[in-house]
Amino acid sequence: MTHTAEIIAVGTELLLGNTVNTDAQDVSVLLSKLGINVFFHTVVGDNPERLKQAIGIAKSRADIIITTGGLGPTYDDLTKQTLAEAFGKALVFNEGVARQIREFYKNRHSSAKMPESALRQAELPEGCVVFDNGVGTAPGCAFESGGKHILMLPGPPRECRAMLERCGAPYLKRLSESEILSHNIHIFGLGESAVEEKLRDIMESLHNPTLAPYAKDGEVMLRLTAKAGSEEEADRLMAPVLALVRDTLGDIIYGVDTGSLENTVMGLLNERALTLAAAESCTGGLFSKRMTDIPGASKVFTGGVVAYSEGLKTALLGVDPGLLKANGAVSREVALAMADGARKRLGADIGIGITGLAGPGGDASGLEAGAVFAALATEGASFCRRLQLPYDRDRIRIISSSHAFDMVRRFLSGLDVLIAD
Amino acid sequence: MTHTAEIIAVGTELLLGNTVNTDAQDVSVLLSKLGINVFFHTVVGDNPERLKQAIGIAKSRADIIITTGGLGPTYDDLTKQTLAEAFGKALVFNEGVARQIREFYKNRHSSAKMPESALRQAELPEGCVVFDNGVGTAPGCAFESGGKHILMLPGPPRECRAMLERCGAPYLKRLSESEILSHNIHIFGLGESAVEEKLRDIMESLHNPTLAPYAKDGEVMLRLTAKAGSEEEADRLMAPVLALVRDTLGDIIYGVDTGSLENTVMGLLNERALTLAAAESCTGGLFSKRMTDIPGASKVFTGGVVAYSEGLKTALLGVDPGLLKANGAVSREVALAMADGARKRLGADIGIGITGLAGPGGDASGLEAGAVFAALATEGASFCRRLQLPYDRDRIRIISSSHAFDMVRRFLSGLDVLIAD
Repeated sequence: MTHTAEIIAVGTELLLGNTVNTDAQDVSVLLSKLGINVFFHTVVGDNPERLKQAIGIAKSRADIIITTGGLGPTYDDLTKQTLAEAFGKALVFNEGVARQIREFYKNRHSSAKMPESALRQAELPEGCVVFDNGVGTAPGCAFESGGKHILMLPGPPRECRAMLERCGAPYLKRLSESEILSHNIHIFGLGESAVEEKLRDIMESLHNPTLAPYAKDGEVMLRLTAKAGSEEEADRLMAPVLALVRDTLGDIIYGVDTGSLENTVMGLLNERALTLAAAESCTGGLFSKRMTDIPGASKVFTGGVVAYSEGLKTALLGVDPGLLKANGAVSREVALAMADGARKRLGADIGIGITGLAGPGGDASGLEAGAVFAALATEGASFCRRLQLPYDRDRIRIISSSHAFDMVRRFLSGLDVLIAD
Repeated sequence: MTHTAEIIAVGTELLLGNTVNTDAQDVSVLLSKLGINVFFHTVVGDNPERLKQAIGIAKSRADIIITTGGLGPTYDDLTKQTLAEAFGKALVFNEGVARQIREFYKNRHSSAKMPESALRQAELPEGCVVFDNGVGTAPGCAFESGGKHILMLPGPPRECRAMLERCGAPYLKRLSESEILSHNIHIFGLGESAVEEKLRDIMESLHNPTLAPYAKDGEVMLRLTAKAGSEEEADRLMAPVLALVRDTLGDIIYGVDTGSLENTVMGLLNERALTLAAAESCTGGLFSKRMTDIPGASKVFTGGVVAYSEGLKTALLGVDPGLLKANGAVSREVALAMADGARKRLGADIGIGITGLAGPGGDASGLEAGAVFAALATEGASFCRRLQLPYDRDRIRIISSSHAFDMVRRFLSGLDVLIAD
């Protein structure tokens, strides 16, 4: 039997926008791994009537209900009472849990006395499995009623995550029979609708595995997901589809399960034992920042220069002042000279140069915001992409740096570097 | 009449846990500001039956329904059709919107032809108000039906946020009668519980305005919110509380409604007509990136150097090799020399130097991950903070760069620069 789960997050702070619902994400990731379908997330405030309503709806359409939040000691923590009532269970005082709570307060070396209300947390639905809270005081629990399973987890993300891993995962694993495996196929150089156009027939013909596109920051990710009795079987189901997608999209796929362009570039640099350096103008350090987000970047990334002014482009990168004067700072010639300067001055095999207008607003020479030149230089060759990105400042900067990473990727893979030019 | 809103986020990626529902948070923050109650968030996948069900439930309990996601051009983008159907509206092809979409593709100077499916985005519910998408192609919209208001926003957080601000907020503002005003009080240099301890009595005594703390990336933000018949009245209610908070917390408040440390620093540099440059090691360009996130940064930020290797610290910043050898690259002396090098080599009034171990893992000299030196140098003086940050790599990098910004802020404000040392 395939299970269907619903996640109910309880907490007015979520409805006010004070916090974001990371608990639902954490629980979803686990359920997805276990092959348990999640059809709805609900968020409801600390209000008895509306919580009761949300539980009623979930009960009618899911056979696993997982709640987060509302387990604390205060009067507006209502999750346990409301769920127990909805499933006809009494709350029973648990002496073992009460002892742990008293212990917790004693061990905090805190001058604060335990408030009497803290012991409300020891009242749990009859016959439940207790989930210890290794991080805070509020225990969670799980019970079964009429074939439905109800799990209660605490709201603070750290506590929720810890309890999910230690108690929730083993409990749920028993309920699930199938394995869900997925691959993330990363694409740079084609928009979401164009990718989908190319793959529509494949996507529509699939049931297991499934293939779904997600767009983000100028990239497209395809998620290929299979459900099977074992990992091997899931892999066997996915292999031919993966091959078909590769055939259809070709070298705009920059990686499978690699996470990001910079990860792919880092892997290629390590493989080939080559180093990289960057000279940035409009991206203002973002290329370097992305590269150094990865632990161990120092092995392949010698450094970067953020040179906004013409003077610094000359002083730090050796860009010829005549070149700047003749072509302007935002030009193919200067991008190439910056890339070459980065390579030489920062002692790397490959240099990147990015110059452009991140906006808002264009410049005196008539260039519009979004005009960007991204260049790559090595000892023997150099390349420059001319971009015109119709986006806001943040996105212009992100996508420009992605183009530079894509150029390195294509260069190191022996592909035409200028595909997007 | 007080309105009740429900937010429905549409997207299977949310149910799989691939993304977190920041859209619901962004919409909630706005609604809370406008004094519109939010009683439920729902997340549903790209599935016509379940989307219909979620809309039916929302229709029965809310009079404002705001959806995010499912507006794109692909076959599993179903929000418009499903909502139009639920409220008995036809979808009508909007020639103006179609023109904009064609324009968007033309302006990209891309060799990729516009896929025909892109024009599906021009089909909108009859009689709706069109919400332009300044960031992507999918327009949003709003319509009214039987006293209920339905708003559709795109899913990608950047697009959702931009449209919410430009189109959603003015539309919703008309529906709300009371003014809700708030101030964000930004704090760096004290943790959330310590801030809360200092303000507990004030917070507990308040009803209107209210004061609530939020912690993020090593900072604390206090949100002061008043509800009143007019902006003037709201301001009158907040002024004495703001003064009391300022008195209580003093100069760890780096700004009110300034958004970020880098914005405050940018304002101070502009005021004093001074320039800044940065030399970064463990933060890998993040300081420069944050500075140049702000349009117009080139006026006050001359540039930055990311120098991972000892050789580059010497070649680009003039750090004495003897100093490096005697103290190690992660040391007070080297941080100060980097700051001074940045100032001199990059031609700025103030130089920043950041060196440390972002982790994971410590170094041979026995320093642990999270050991960071942040230095500031000017012609007449220099300062260095020694930090030991018990966090993961990302957070170590963010908080280190924040310390450097805080040093500039305190230096330019004539305050003791070393408060956190």
